[in-house]
Amino acid sequence: MTKSRLEAFSDGVLAIIITIMVLELKMPEGESEQDLKALIPLIPTFLSYILSFIYVGIYWNNHHHMFHLVDKINGAVLWKNLNLLFWLSLVPFTTAWMDKHYDKPIPVALYGFVLLMAGIAYVILQKELIKIGGPDCKLAKAVGTDAKGNASWILYLAGISGSFISPWIGIGIYALVAIIWFIPDKRIERFYSTDQEI
Amino acid sequence: MTKSRLEAFSDGVLAIIITIMVLELKMPEGESEQDLKALIPLIPTFLSYILSFIYVGIYWNNHHHMFHLVDKINGAVLWKNLNLLFWLSLVPFTTAWMDKHYDKPIPVALYGFVLLMAGIAYVILQKELIKIGGPDCKLAKAVGTDAKGNASWILYLAGISGSFISPWIGIGIYALVAIIWFIPDKRIERFYSTDQEI
Amino acid sequence: MTKSRLEAFSDGVLAIIITIMVLELKMPEGESEQDLKALIPLIPTFLSYILSFIYVGIYWNNHHHMFHLVDKINGAVLWKNLNLLFWLSLVPFTTAWMDKHYDKPIPVALYGFVLLMAGIAYVILQKELIKIGGPDCKLAKAVGTDAKGNASWILYLAGISGSFISPWIGIGIYALVAIIWFIPDKRIERFYSTDQEI
Amino acid sequence: MTKSRLEAFSDGVLAIIITIMVLELKMPEGESEQDLKALIPLIPTFLSYILSFIYVGIYWNNHHHMFHLVDKINGAVLWKNLNLLFWLSLVPFTTAWMDKHYDKPIPVALYGFVLLMAGIAYVILQKELIKIGGPDCKLAKAVGTDAKGNASWILYLAGISGSFISPWIGIGIYALVAIIWFIPDKRIERFYSTDQEI
Repeated sequence: MTKSRLEAFSDGVLAIIITIMVLELKMPEGESEQDLKALIPLIPTFLSYILSFIYVGIYWNNHHHMFHLVDKINGAVLWKNLNLLFWLSLVPFTTAWMDKHYDKPIPVALYGFVLLMAGIAYVILQKELIKIGGPDCKLAKAVGTDAKGNASWILYLAGISGSFISPWIGIGIYALVAIIWFIPDKRIERFYSTDQEI
Repeated sequence: MTKSRLEAFSDGVLAIIITIMVLELKMPEGESEQDLKALIPLIPTFLSYILSFIYVGIYWNNHHHMFHLVDKINGAVLWKNLNLLFWLSLVPFTTAWMDKHYDKPIPVALYGFVLLMAGIAYVILQKELIKIGGPDCKLAKAVGTDAKGNASWILYLAGISGSFISPWIGIGIYALVAIIWFIPDKRIERFYSTDQEI
Repeated sequence: MTKSRLEAFSDGVLAIIITIMVLELKMPEGESEQDLKALIPLIPTFLSYILSFIYVGIYWNNHHHMFHLVDKINGAVLWKNLNLLFWLSLVPFTTAWMDKHYDKPIPVALYGFVLLMAGIAYVILQKELIKIGGPDCKLAKAVGTDAKGNASWILYLAGISGSFISPWIGIGIYALVAIIWFIPDKRIERFYSTDQEI
Repeated sequence: MTKSRLEAFSDGVLAIIITIMVLELKMPEGESEQDLKALIPLIPTFLSYILSFIYVGIYWNNHHHMFHLVDKINGAVLWKNLNLLFWLSLVPFTTAWMDKHYDKPIPVALYGFVLLMAGIAYVILQKELIKIGGPDCKLAKAVGTDAKGNASWILYLAGISGSFISPWIGIGIYALVAIIWFIPDKRIERFYSTDQEI
């Protein structure tokens, strides 16, 4: 089974997820709606849009890297990939709820819960791909001990719990996870480009 | 005629269908809207989203498998494929209606009716592809007597009829069909991977 | 310049156009909304959805056929293709207006006008492709005198004008054009498959 | 790392951005809604749709040209591409706000600001690609001094500032930039086709 359609379908779903979130950015109607002040109530929506955009971007990047290192897939991969897309498809919903109630524990905790489930789904998919490729496959080597993945899980759980102390703790931790993934991909990149040159 | 654009277009349409259903997941406005309780009225929407997500996922998987085994297409295939996409494009609508009235016969029966029509459209497409490939083509062998396809039809009809006794019978049967397709694809997979190795 | 990204982008836009129209299919809220009767006011929406689905399907099919016969594109093709996509992107809007006022001349005429403009955009694109390929290119031969294209134009104009006598004349003529394109593509198909075999 | 998935994902996002803007075209409800007069309040929406359609079209064209000249990408390119898509994803929002308040400075200035940010994001991406390819790569040669890009920035800034004198100045300048990109791509095209022939 070739991976090209799985990639194309995933690209399509992720492109839609990342783009429909912007539909939440709607001008509130009212007197000063042509004013700069009209943009103030949109700030939380905008910030949570950025956060979710980065998260979906991270997943797209990682998905891209992962399947690049993979040659063989099977029927189980199709479903485990759909499982990942399912959880990511909930991100626009949890984003919309969180940006409306960014100061309440439940919406912020739910946002983290869906990220956690997407993270678990990603690892399930990764394990299946490594199972197919064998312990010496390129993906197995690139993933290694997956310190970053494990740290994310602990941080998601901390963020979800922290939301009940203060939602800002939750949001802060989610932003931290995004930054962790966003910045130091040098190691994987190095593995990656070496792999390319061979 | 190459199949790549048909696959790309179908992937696009299916990606959109599977993703726009999540737009139905909207927080009801009200006093307790930042509460866990606010999620309770969303449970039927969420469950029917899962069911429809799995159904569209099944169709995508099967479509993927089917066209993988096919080399030649023609103009009739384009239209028969569009026919399948047409019925699947109605799934977000019937899902939205069913999740609002999951305890009423007509919406539940209509949900099953659209699934039945999509099932019929799928078989029409499959027959055309086998006609082009000839009785000895890979697809013809993989499909065989298509016991699972035939069982689905009987179950859809049972589900549609059962909805008029109790909508829960209908929903239960639709869930059963999804499970049947979801679980035991071992046989096809085996054929498939054998085919790959040759 | 390769045509693959132009095809991928066009497939994406057409997939979205064909799918977002289904968002118009919304249950009217009211007392009998779980009833079969609730579906009656949706019939015009549904029928115009089918008509527009077929039209976009025809354009996708023709676009597919046309670019299959083409090897070279240039920057002008990109813009002329975007021009076609622009007019087709208006179809969901004119469809929504027509299905709400299917008994009024202006919405029905506007629906035809956008189809006419899309038809003209298609021919402009086709002419550019033939200009690039030269008078002996495969596309030039396949198009021939383009009797079907010319007939469509006259019929669109008749439909637009006829809408002012009775909207039903307009709708009838638009359906007729769809049927003309839907059915007898045997000739092109023959050219096409011959071409394939060589 | 291959560029094909980056292209496919970008095509998907741009296809969605360009298409969801048409969802703003909605018939205002009222007495004369089946009338030609009903279309009059839609004229600003329609004109700003055309403007934004052309802008997204320009970005798609330029993106297409740029990546055509590029062979190697890396992880930084993925993020810098996502940055460009992020700013472009805001275009439907700023378009919707501007078409509702086309006679007010802030919405018109914001529209220009997002275009400016997208322009900057584009140059950041271009610089990264040239850094990877080296100063003698095809892209570096094709871009040259990038007079058009530099002119756009000055014009965007003029448009944003001009909006505070009169919004029409802003809109006029944005239209001018679109025309500049729309028309005289002959030079690049020439480079391009020469490159093709070698």
